[in-house]
Amino acid sequence: MEKNGCDNDNRIFPCFVPAQRILNLVSKKWSIQLIYLLREGKRFRYNDLKSSLHLGWKEDKISDATLSTRLLELSKEGFLLREVYPELPPKVEYRLSEKGENLSKALEPLVDWTIKICHEE
Amino acid sequence: MEKNGCDNDNRIFPCFVPAQRILNLVSKKWSIQLIYLLREGKRFRYNDLKSSLHLGWKEDKISDATLSTRLLELSKEGFLLREVYPELPPKVEYRLSEKGENLSKALEPLVDWTIKICHEE
Repeated sequence: MEKNGCDNDNRIFPCFVPAQRILNLVSKKWSIQLIYLLREGKRFRYNDLKSSLHLGWKEDKISDATLSTRLLELSKEGFLLREVYPELPPKVEYRLSEKGENLSKALEPLVDWTIKICHEE
Repeated sequence: MEKNGCDNDNRIFPCFVPAQRILNLVSKKWSIQLIYLLREGKRFRYNDLKSSLHLGWKEDKISDATLSTRLLELSKEGFLLREVYPELPPKVEYRLSEKGENLSKALEPLVDWTIKICHEE
């Protein structure tokens, strides 16, 4: 079994398999915004995440189904941590894992560049 | 009408609209490989592009339909130039535009990072 479906040694190319998989997730609606909100160690509860996304995007609201799905997908890929505090009522916070923080940094040049061209065009 | 659907001034977030659109294209199968092949001023004819992609990806061949579609999509977004030389038979070469070269550079940290984690995991 190849690691992550990648068999770099036999190819003249770098292995794009993990890049493809991560890009597929990152390019889904709201993924970048979520990663951006949570970057640099920020912690959010579910409702605060949702209302912060709505503050930034007035005309387009994220549904609970989509937000839950994105949070699950980002967690499964190891980018997001869900922390449950033993309180009553239970408190749940989301934050980026180390891998998630690294992804947010790797995404920065791409996001910065697309913002730049958006204002040039 | 907003530029690229982006209205940055009214939002607490940077504008992710162009990032989303570009990521949607880049995350399609073979896009990154094509951009990677053509980076740094390289020029390819259609059949050379196809055979180079096949050299790198033994188990997975790109179809003519997919390759043509990706070339068209990348051209439409302004990343790719199609140059026709007035010869007989006509010679057509593909290369990245300046915008395409900038995209390839903006993608580098993301691709490098996913390659790195692919070999760490």
